[in-house]
Amino acid sequence: MGLLDGEPRVVTAGVSLFADSLADQAVDTVRVDWRPPADDPDGRLAAALARVFADPRRAEADATAVGRMLAAGARLVDVRPAGEALGLERGTFLHAGPPIDWERASGPMRGALQGAMVFEGLASDPDDAARQLATPGAVRLEPCHHHAAVGPMAGVISPSMWVFELADPVGGGRAWCSLNEGLGKVLRYGAYSPEVVERLRWMSAVLGPLLQHAVRDAAGPGAGGPVDVKAIIAQMLQMGDEGHNRNRAGTLMLLRDLLPALIDAPGNATGAAAHLTQADVARAVRFVGGNDHFFLNLVMPACKLMTDAARDVPGSGVVVAMARNGTDFGIQVSGTGDRWFIGPANTPQGLYLGDYGPDDANPDIGDSAITETAGIGGFSMAAAPAIVRFVGGDVAFALATTRRMYEITRAENPAFAIPVLEFRGAPTGIDVTAVVRTGILPQINTGMAGRVAGVGQVGAGLVTPPAEVFPAALHALAELAPPPA
Amino acid sequence: MGLLDGEPRVVTAGVSLFADSLADQAVDTVRVDWRPPADDPDGRLAAALARVFADPRRAEADATAVGRMLAAGARLVDVRPAGEALGLERGTFLHAGPPIDWERASGPMRGALQGAMVFEGLASDPDDAARQLATPGAVRLEPCHHHAAVGPMAGVISPSMWVFELADPVGGGRAWCSLNEGLGKVLRYGAYSPEVVERLRWMSAVLGPLLQHAVRDAAGPGAGGPVDVKAIIAQMLQMGDEGHNRNRAGTLMLLRDLLPALIDAPGNATGAAAHLTQADVARAVRFVGGNDHFFLNLVMPACKLMTDAARDVPGSGVVVAMARNGTDFGIQVSGTGDRWFIGPANTPQGLYLGDYGPDDANPDIGDSAITETAGIGGFSMAAAPAIVRFVGGDVAFALATTRRMYEITRAENPAFAIPVLEFRGAPTGIDVTAVVRTGILPQINTGMAGRVAGVGQVGAGLVTPPAEVFPAALHALAELAPPPA
Repeated sequence: MGLLDGEPRVVTAGVSLFADSLADQAVDTVRVDWRPPADDPDGRLAAALARVFADPRRAEADATAVGRMLAAGARLVDVRPAGEALGLERGTFLHAGPPIDWERASGPMRGALQGAMVFEGLASDPDDAARQLATPGAVRLEPCHHHAAVGPMAGVISPSMWVFELADPVGGGRAWCSLNEGLGKVLRYGAYSPEVVERLRWMSAVLGPLLQHAVRDAAGPGAGGPVDVKAIIAQMLQMGDEGHNRNRAGTLMLLRDLLPALIDAPGNATGAAAHLTQADVARAVRFVGGNDHFFLNLVMPACKLMTDAARDVPGSGVVVAMARNGTDFGIQVSGTGDRWFIGPANTPQGLYLGDYGPDDANPDIGDSAITETAGIGGFSMAAAPAIVRFVGGDVAFALATTRRMYEITRAENPAFAIPVLEFRGAPTGIDVTAVVRTGILPQINTGMAGRVAGVGQVGAGLVTPPAEVFPAALHALAELAPPPA
Repeated sequence: MGLLDGEPRVVTAGVSLFADSLADQAVDTVRVDWRPPADDPDGRLAAALARVFADPRRAEADATAVGRMLAAGARLVDVRPAGEALGLERGTFLHAGPPIDWERASGPMRGALQGAMVFEGLASDPDDAARQLATPGAVRLEPCHHHAAVGPMAGVISPSMWVFELADPVGGGRAWCSLNEGLGKVLRYGAYSPEVVERLRWMSAVLGPLLQHAVRDAAGPGAGGPVDVKAIIAQMLQMGDEGHNRNRAGTLMLLRDLLPALIDAPGNATGAAAHLTQADVARAVRFVGGNDHFFLNLVMPACKLMTDAARDVPGSGVVVAMARNGTDFGIQVSGTGDRWFIGPANTPQGLYLGDYGPDDANPDIGDSAITETAGIGGFSMAAAPAIVRFVGGDVAFALATTRRMYEITRAENPAFAIPVLEFRGAPTGIDVTAVVRTGILPQINTGMAGRVAGVGQVGAGLVTPPAEVFPAALHALAELAPPPA
């Protein structure tokens, strides 16, 4: 192993890259390493792989991309209305996944948009909303990802919803995410009943302003500094959470960190929280503490900061986004800019709530696969063996899954140590070429939305991207590679 | 395997006993099962083992003892001064472990008693306290265990300290424990400086009364019911805690459950908390949230309720207490009543704080081994692989330790499932005969106190009981067995 004499050395920038990823840059090694993809009758894929492997920029580009991903920090710096934070105008709705229109939108995406129209006062009821949404040009739909934002499940963000604002002190990036509503009949799973809209109103009138007071207080002069979301993620991986479908410990740590300032709010807060009472604080604390998934909406933008830091490194095949809109699954890759590589979303398999079954589940939906893109969630299932009681599988599967993900990733994240693997770092930085070479698809843990608008959550389970998005990305990467010398 | 035809069947009372523990009752099986203890030149131990194995009450007695241990619940029903809760009079001090006097007390035990004398206003300073404590008859020292109480490390409880009060809704037992002070320079590790005493005064004036308000509020009519400590222990084992040296998730869950009532206290509390303010609540919440061990003092009395429920079953060799006073290590066994079987405490080995080293550590001290007696702590290390960064060892050791403990315990606790072992129940109910037969000693995780009074904590590590306490208990059990037919 090791580099051939006379070959240029790779700058790894403190990143623990796999030996084989370093060896890739030597053309001699490629022949040894490479196995022909199963389905490549005309040899086009083999040619694309060879072209990418031969790209002299590749090893350093991947090291740069992954190095930036691992170095990014994530601090919770504000909570405010999406209209203000993201400059969203009335009538614009962000959504999860790659771009989509009403025509092709699935049930839960439609349901969430209908509920958001009612919440914004743009429609009198869900049927009215559906009529307007079906009218071309009546509203604007744009992916969260196009606004440095992420949203779980349908991921709908409208101007009056409040969002978490996170900052990366290393690279300077910002990322946003909605506040988590809890489980069951909630907007992000496509429910739109009056209780759903009422809860959103309370979140904008009480929860958001209280969190804003607490977050600004913690981040202000003389306080302990903004909540370090990355540090909480590191801790939660030692506490049985994988950061996607288990966020129990993370939620409790967030609550602990914000508590003193929350308690201080009545009588002391200014601005939107000025009028709020002890009873409002008690209800907010009960709401957050009673929702094990509350912290997911902070893990996601933290992962968005990590993956955004890795964008736009020419020659790099590192995946920087995986996102689903309930119809399509799309990925973006560092070396190919803002292009989406898209295929039909698979339907998750797992455990169902109540009487629901496989026929009730919508295809995969949500920006939450940003967690796997950053090395946690399904990639770090070994840290969260109890998750199998929520998404299916057994503990051996959870351990094997994490071990398998090391085969398609470029680095191990020392900040995200997995205790049961003797503190090995989370497998991080999906390599498009490794996915194509090995046929191993990224493992995603996910919630399952009902396929009919208005239903809400029906379960939780396991899913993978459609295999074809990785060859598509590889071809694009190959086209951008310099011609062979 | 299995029972011989015609043998009486054992009533297991819903308890999943090991096949070999059932097989023990058949005398024929004993000869197969039994290995001679390593150090038994005169055959006395072999004779005692044979006598106990031949006791026809044994299998059912152990099943009863362990069945009661597993069935016991643990609800947090009150917080109040020890004088009131335990009827402690001024000048009486409870301490950890079996009985001990000032003469034989170790440094940290002496330091804690000195600090408690100052805290109670019975001495002007620690030197004055030492003089009084050395005067025979000046104060009364009694084990916590003799008052249905437990205390971590020195375990000193004096009348003005506030205690948690837990109730077992199944067997009707009660158990008490002091409030946790945090780490470092704290009374229970033998520190007695003014800051230590000042903190104890704040705990009695503010923290105790606030917790009392919150606990009574939660337990009162119309509320959710008392905090279910057993349920939190079940959860924490899924969140990387083992309940002895890791109590992070447990502490956060307790905080979550008490929060709404804590927030409600200013202006609404009556009694001792009537005058307390929002700032007091914020400080209390910061204190609890900043002390990862706070919940230990609730795990311990919960385990005390479990093990007390298993006491006094004639013929049972199940251990119902393991406790250390810093000089002696004592155990009590279900079938031998309140007798202590005592040997010299070992000194833990592990990881040291700052510049401290092995020479600074006192021998094993504290009632906290009640956690191992009830199947968690060192027995459930597999649930908490990250603990090895605190007590030493590696993850393989943690997993192997839990697996080894199944060899000396009578049951697996379905309420305390260990995810990484595919949700196998915690190894519970130490069997004196199994310890003697196998030579496997119970594994205890523990804090390490400085051996000099006043120092405080010097580290955390691993320790076992002195081997001789188990043969001593076995002989006593044999003497109580009916003569062979």
